[in-house]
Amino acid sequence: MQRTARDHVPDWDAGLYLKYADERTRPARDLLAQVPITAADLVYDLGCGPGNSTNLVAARFPHAEVIGIDSSPAMLEEARRALPRISFEMADLATWRPPRPANLLFSNAALQWVPEHLQVLRALVETLPSGGILAMQVPDNLAEPSQVLIREIAAGGAWAERLKHAEGARQIIPAPNVYYDLLHPLCQRIDLWHTIYHHVQAGAPAIVEWMTGTALRPHLARLDMAERQAFLAAYEERIAAAYPALADGRVIHPFPRLFLIAVKA
Amino acid sequence: MQRTARDHVPDWDAGLYLKYADERTRPARDLLAQVPITAADLVYDLGCGPGNSTNLVAARFPHAEVIGIDSSPAMLEEARRALPRISFEMADLATWRPPRPANLLFSNAALQWVPEHLQVLRALVETLPSGGILAMQVPDNLAEPSQVLIREIAAGGAWAERLKHAEGARQIIPAPNVYYDLLHPLCQRIDLWHTIYHHVQAGAPAIVEWMTGTALRPHLARLDMAERQAFLAAYEERIAAAYPALADGRVIHPFPRLFLIAVKA
Repeated sequence: MQRTARDHVPDWDAGLYLKYADERTRPARDLLAQVPITAADLVYDLGCGPGNSTNLVAARFPHAEVIGIDSSPAMLEEARRALPRISFEMADLATWRPPRPANLLFSNAALQWVPEHLQVLRALVETLPSGGILAMQVPDNLAEPSQVLIREIAAGGAWAERLKHAEGARQIIPAPNVYYDLLHPLCQRIDLWHTIYHHVQAGAPAIVEWMTGTALRPHLARLDMAERQAFLAAYEERIAAAYPALADGRVIHPFPRLFLIAVKA
Repeated sequence: MQRTARDHVPDWDAGLYLKYADERTRPARDLLAQVPITAADLVYDLGCGPGNSTNLVAARFPHAEVIGIDSSPAMLEEARRALPRISFEMADLATWRPPRPANLLFSNAALQWVPEHLQVLRALVETLPSGGILAMQVPDNLAEPSQVLIREIAAGGAWAERLKHAEGARQIIPAPNVYYDLLHPLCQRIDLWHTIYHHVQAGAPAIVEWMTGTALRPHLARLDMAERQAFLAAYEERIAAAYPALADGRVIHPFPRLFLIAVKA
């Protein structure tokens, strides 16, 4: 989880975030499955949150020193509680660089919160030894109804002025060719793919709750209690219309994510 | 690989198909990685082609009887040569049903060639024992430029009448909710996702060659030699315009695929 100076949001709610732990851990597993090394001495988990991804990484590399990095005290506290044998350190990914060259820089669902994340990515790859790996996953869902509706409701209310800056917290994810052109000169191999997870959720309220735990945080933080209720009511109504019910009453919530594996030359 | 009575195409070129074996095997690996069982007695690989996927399945279930099914004599010959210890049988997936209940029906990049594949899918799931699994991957790329351009060039030439029926060989892949609503009544769990693989290829000619090995087969089979050359020249020109070059002159060829895992109730 990454908080920056630009993003005036209260700390993360680790409990709400973990409520969808299975769905949120699947992308980390899928990313890790494509990491093309079988052993490592030093691995960093960048934006480790409550430690779900760090736990996976540590299981995959049992002989490696694995260190989780995050900027959220609440998330770090949860991670240390859950995984007492792993080190966790507080830092801002915008400026953090590995103090020692790592075999793997792993980052699951974090770099979308880091300003100028392309430059950060390039700087991180530059620190890798030859054969070292950067493995990144970021949500790439700004064009999904779940995100478009946030922007529309934000722009259409008395809160429009205050919410204008909530948008900026989340970086726009460029097309895969941008990552390729940025990193290929430094790398022997670049692997890029998108996965759209078709999460089956109980209904529109479950989608709203999911979004409340992540994308809606910068918006809700800028609203008072009554405004939050009004915002969420409008959002749930439009979510219900945008995501039609399945035959059994549940609803599919498609969630696109971009994956990148870069192997240093 | 599946050939049907409706699809008057010469047999598959296993060598051309295998030229992109790494890229074509990745989806089978990704599908297998999500199959939620660790042991099996009997597994069928439906549309096994030259056996790449069958080999993966057999490695994952070393104690299982693994049987590959395909309708192409050329593919079966290649599969038997490559994997002499695995059984391969010729059959048409449109009508084939497992003679004994299987723990896993695995099908990588085959069911898109089977007419009425939704009914076939349902019938296959019905044969599964409780806890048995159907795992399917199909290309879902009919809206990609690589496919749209085939249809446009087919419709725009003197060959239009003859190529009208080439389209029909390939089934349209409906949205995920259709698979969910079809199979959920029979299942304890349905898992659906799309992955878009951003293959980096040498240039437009490599994309054309890739498509020649699969999607273009029904079209090329209906053309004489001069027409084939004219079709492919027009196609390559428009592919080059539709897939812009990367900084290093290569090109990204995005390839969307739908994945389904159904666990019988």
